[in-house]
Amino acid sequence: MMKSPVLTLAEDLISRPSVTPEDAGCQDLMIARLEALDFRVTRLPAGGVQNFWAERGQSGPCLCFAGHTDVVPTGPLEAWHSHPFSPSIRDGMLYGRGAADMKGSLAAMIVAAEAFVADNPRHGGRLAFLITSDEEGIATHGTRHVVDWLREQDANIDWCVVGEPSSEEQLGDVIKNGRRGSLNGHLTVQGIQGHVAYPDKADNPIHRAFRPLADLVEQSWDAGNEFFPPTRLQFSNIHAGTGANNVIPGQLSADFNFRFSTESTPESLQTGVHQILDAAQIHYQIDWQLSGPPFFTAPGTLVAATQQALKTALGHAAKLSTGGGTSDGRFIAQLGGQVVELGPVNSTIHKLNECVAVSDLEDLSRIYAGIMRNLLGSGSAE
Amino acid sequence: MMKSPVLTLAEDLISRPSVTPEDAGCQDLMIARLEALDFRVTRLPAGGVQNFWAERGQSGPCLCFAGHTDVVPTGPLEAWHSHPFSPSIRDGMLYGRGAADMKGSLAAMIVAAEAFVADNPRHGGRLAFLITSDEEGIATHGTRHVVDWLREQDANIDWCVVGEPSSEEQLGDVIKNGRRGSLNGHLTVQGIQGHVAYPDKADNPIHRAFRPLADLVEQSWDAGNEFFPPTRLQFSNIHAGTGANNVIPGQLSADFNFRFSTESTPESLQTGVHQILDAAQIHYQIDWQLSGPPFFTAPGTLVAATQQALKTALGHAAKLSTGGGTSDGRFIAQLGGQVVELGPVNSTIHKLNECVAVSDLEDLSRIYAGIMRNLLGSGSAE
Repeated sequence: MMKSPVLTLAEDLISRPSVTPEDAGCQDLMIARLEALDFRVTRLPAGGVQNFWAERGQSGPCLCFAGHTDVVPTGPLEAWHSHPFSPSIRDGMLYGRGAADMKGSLAAMIVAAEAFVADNPRHGGRLAFLITSDEEGIATHGTRHVVDWLREQDANIDWCVVGEPSSEEQLGDVIKNGRRGSLNGHLTVQGIQGHVAYPDKADNPIHRAFRPLADLVEQSWDAGNEFFPPTRLQFSNIHAGTGANNVIPGQLSADFNFRFSTESTPESLQTGVHQILDAAQIHYQIDWQLSGPPFFTAPGTLVAATQQALKTALGHAAKLSTGGGTSDGRFIAQLGGQVVELGPVNSTIHKLNECVAVSDLEDLSRIYAGIMRNLLGSGSAE
Repeated sequence: MMKSPVLTLAEDLISRPSVTPEDAGCQDLMIARLEALDFRVTRLPAGGVQNFWAERGQSGPCLCFAGHTDVVPTGPLEAWHSHPFSPSIRDGMLYGRGAADMKGSLAAMIVAAEAFVADNPRHGGRLAFLITSDEEGIATHGTRHVVDWLREQDANIDWCVVGEPSSEEQLGDVIKNGRRGSLNGHLTVQGIQGHVAYPDKADNPIHRAFRPLADLVEQSWDAGNEFFPPTRLQFSNIHAGTGANNVIPGQLSADFNFRFSTESTPESLQTGVHQILDAAQIHYQIDWQLSGPPFFTAPGTLVAATQQALKTALGHAAKLSTGGGTSDGRFIAQLGGQVVELGPVNSTIHKLNECVAVSDLEDLSRIYAGIMRNLLGSGSAE
């Protein structure tokens, strides 16, 4: 059986070892295919990261497909059943690093564009691609950089489909129409160093910290809402001590992270944390870092077009969800448009033996093409 | 003015850089002086540590002077006003690492023995020295080793004066007639690692630990007694986290130390800790290490002889105390004899610019000689 265009391109992309921030030639492959369709391509490299923006059509609303060519590290090679950068098909599954996150999606997008443009050479509006090689890393020079550039161009994105693996049990069962915000705090509690035999001459910051930090953990920050689960705080790191077991340390440090709903703001959370720690009368300071505000796309044109495409291709619509980690959707949403994430089943992402069903890639490409048709095709809603 | 024998010997000892477990020739100096007084010397090196036992007299009760030739590290040399291993006198103070802890005491002991033997060549009982070069370190091959050897010889120590710097404001204001016990616990709290965005799939050991560890800190272990302050627990180290701020760690570790009175036992403290942690229903384990049991010498022959010597030399007696850190007294007390600690003012020990008053060294030597006279001299109480 001849390999399909989607599978062939997915294998080509997987065979390029593009661990963040490397692109390893993936974008060259994609750009060649898009230029053949008369997309106008702007390469936007920054800080060792490869990015590009590609656009087709002159005016009207912009539908953008967004994604990343970089992948997370493989982990121990010997624990893979086949080499992570040598795509391999077994029992209908395509194995390789990035198969599900998200080179399979990239292949499906490109082939969808080819099919859509073939049928709609003079489609309405604008069809675009926003691709980066730094989504899995610190993400400073990736999508954020392209969004800054778009803002400078006064360009807008009306609808964006991010190819993140949103599906949980089977392809298309979940669309992400928002994500919680992420706020980091680096807390330092000051004490006075001393000898454990003379605690009255010292002030143990470990002892000072326990109750107020427990209060932070047990605080109810908000109850969430119809679209978001309640805001949660998690400590990720805590450190104090000189190593010696007879010394009371002078300082304790701890990192915590909020995943927050649209019911809270970074400001409301910061105020709440300070209230609890101030009440405990400890000496402390916090360095705050807003990793990303929450974003939310209410059901509307983009969600409807996506659900319609799912129903046509798979016979069912998806559940809307705002759960899980952050994605580049947080940066794109700042342009003011509607953003959804739709991609393969995410059960193996970031793990050993990452894989995706070959048939899901074919279906995903049909779904992406359906979205293009529904929004930019001759018979589209717009 | 000619330098006194005590000052000369103290300077000789300080000029030898004997950072634990090094002896740097200090014990050779002391042994030469003691052999000249007809002490029988047994060198007892072990595990890279230098130790010796010296004894004079054939039978009867044994009065032992105990101490260590090793010193703690200097810290940054540039922060010393004079080189820590180049003894220097300024304004009546002798500066150098070990001046107060405890090479000054060693010099005072040796010169005291010389004076006492000169006056009492056929003294009663036995006069002994127990010297190690590992008191400031892990102390496995030091006094503990000599005590084991004494036990094998069926030798006993009836009275022991440890030259630790017991004085607080002025020489001889405090005698230590006991020390609290020291018990270390290394605690590990188990959780389940995960992503901060998916806390329901993880079990955060930092969150689990806060309340029960605060309960340990706030527990009243005992109320102490006439001679001991209440037992106290201090955390010295706490660590959890992968470094990443989006990962919930799988484990937390913490070190804590009890300084405990004779009202508690290692067993009672361990039971109490387990009760609190078991009640919290956390998954944990503790590695226990008994650093030293408490010891206590009730006022009696040795304390009386010491107080009498203080009154004769200084005109006042000392306050009895069991406060502060551990000392090698804990090992010697296990032989069943009476133990006190008496030495210089401890305000600069382990610090930069450690020093001792030159006149205190002269007084200390007179006090030590007085104790020898009171217990072993021709007119002694025994």
